[in-house]
Amino acid sequence: MLGLDPDPGRLWPRALEIVERDPKGGDHRSPSERAARAVAAHCRLVLEAVSECCVAVKPQLACFERLGAAGWAALAEVIADVRDRGLVVIADGKRGDIDISARAYAQAFFGATESPFGRLQSLGVDALTVNPLLGRDSLTPLVDAARADGGGLFVLTRTSNPGAADVQDQLLEGGGTVSTLLARIVDEIGRDGIGATGLADVGAVTGATAPDRLEALRTAMPHAILLLPGIGPQGATGEELAPAYTPGRAGGLVSASRAIVYAGTGSACAGAAAQAANTLRELVWGLYS
Amino acid sequence: MLGLDPDPGRLWPRALEIVERDPKGGDHRSPSERAARAVAAHCRLVLEAVSECCVAVKPQLACFERLGAAGWAALAEVIADVRDRGLVVIADGKRGDIDISARAYAQAFFGATESPFGRLQSLGVDALTVNPLLGRDSLTPLVDAARADGGGLFVLTRTSNPGAADVQDQLLEGGGTVSTLLARIVDEIGRDGIGATGLADVGAVTGATAPDRLEALRTAMPHAILLLPGIGPQGATGEELAPAYTPGRAGGLVSASRAIVYAGTGSACAGAAAQAANTLRELVWGLYS
Repeated sequence: MLGLDPDPGRLWPRALEIVERDPKGGDHRSPSERAARAVAAHCRLVLEAVSECCVAVKPQLACFERLGAAGWAALAEVIADVRDRGLVVIADGKRGDIDISARAYAQAFFGATESPFGRLQSLGVDALTVNPLLGRDSLTPLVDAARADGGGLFVLTRTSNPGAADVQDQLLEGGGTVSTLLARIVDEIGRDGIGATGLADVGAVTGATAPDRLEALRTAMPHAILLLPGIGPQGATGEELAPAYTPGRAGGLVSASRAIVYAGTGSACAGAAAQAANTLRELVWGLYS
Repeated sequence: MLGLDPDPGRLWPRALEIVERDPKGGDHRSPSERAARAVAAHCRLVLEAVSECCVAVKPQLACFERLGAAGWAALAEVIADVRDRGLVVIADGKRGDIDISARAYAQAFFGATESPFGRLQSLGVDALTVNPLLGRDSLTPLVDAARADGGGLFVLTRTSNPGAADVQDQLLEGGGTVSTLLARIVDEIGRDGIGATGLADVGAVTGATAPDRLEALRTAMPHAILLLPGIGPQGATGEELAPAYTPGRAGGLVSASRAIVYAGTGSACAGAAAQAANTLRELVWGLYS
């Protein structure tokens, strides 16, 4: 899976050229609007280069949100492009709030909502990453909305950053860690959404940085698709991910963004990205076969 | 503090009239754009009615986000309006992500960022609510950005929803609960940002639904401003909030949204909202005196 985390200061040179030559883009635009146009062009180029090697694309919402309304418009454009290519869209927003606000977030990402102003279209993603700190009743409205729209969620369970240990690895009095408790919640809320493949519509984000832990989390969530960040710059190697694939080839989704997008520089960006994506694909399929 | 959680299906009637009569708003606009115009008008009317009774305004980002780019533009407008009225803006986004993405979120909310496209302006809020599940290294970039811009954070510590018990109330093997661990983290990262008043720039969201717990959290975070949702529809009464105010009048920020905005109906909306806001203000100041 390709992660799209576009940084206005590190876009592919070709994206800048496209925006500079855009007859509609002039000095009247704000810096955020110009940056958002360039970000959209960059994402399109990256998708052109690597989409054949991916099954899913994960835009990091923070990277669009920092460009304001223009960034949000660019995000909608990128999501439409990903869908047109027949790929799965996983919005990486790590949202989480009390029930009424969780319903509002659900409306932002899944399906459409009737309103006095007409039908409000969401971004129409296939899945959203969510934060479970607020508990089951904060997840239910999102699960319901995703499920009604044929989509799903990925619940943070054990993230790949060093600081994850501060809270997620804490031992609970009743046994296990905060992470294993979160894994049980993931398993529980996904039980009603297990498809013919044996996989549930509620998956988990499980950092690919400790094979032992990954095995325990897999045991606690036998039906969950595991979204595995942490390849490349964050440190994990492919072999450490094998436990994710025990339920089958679709049991794990390895995510890489910078390792692919910045595999090359200058005019070699696209070719190097395609090669890096292909190498990662072969490595991941190799784990299962 | 006024919470702004605008629901396109429950806007003040006057907001709908304003948008219907807008010469620039026509049928060419999408439902989301029309809804976003009405949401902005509604928020302006609510602010006109109650801003004199508030010290801060807390827009719920989910309610704007569900309207896409147009909603994000409305949010920017509402935030500018709140600032023009001299009130503190607390963006209720409950964001939280690994370091590089946390930096991107920080750019969305605090200060301005240099880029090859010029200076990218953030929403320019005074504070943001954040989710600490990813640990200290996920909070640091946000604290740094807020502090550099003279702003602050409110870290989720014990939320007001029933489901909060699922994770936040879990007992840890080493003593205390997940919430008290989060409170220690809040206290720790706020230590470098304690101002002349004795209050830190890192506060906590602590649901106003259990006075015993509130007292323990206050003890763990003697310098934190406590953001207290849960008044009104969520169930807490004002008296239960007294422990929040031990460090002084600014030690607690009681948040109410629906209890104020929907205090009356029809043409009585504005008057009833002003009265409800004033009643709440008197109750809260009464706790301290």
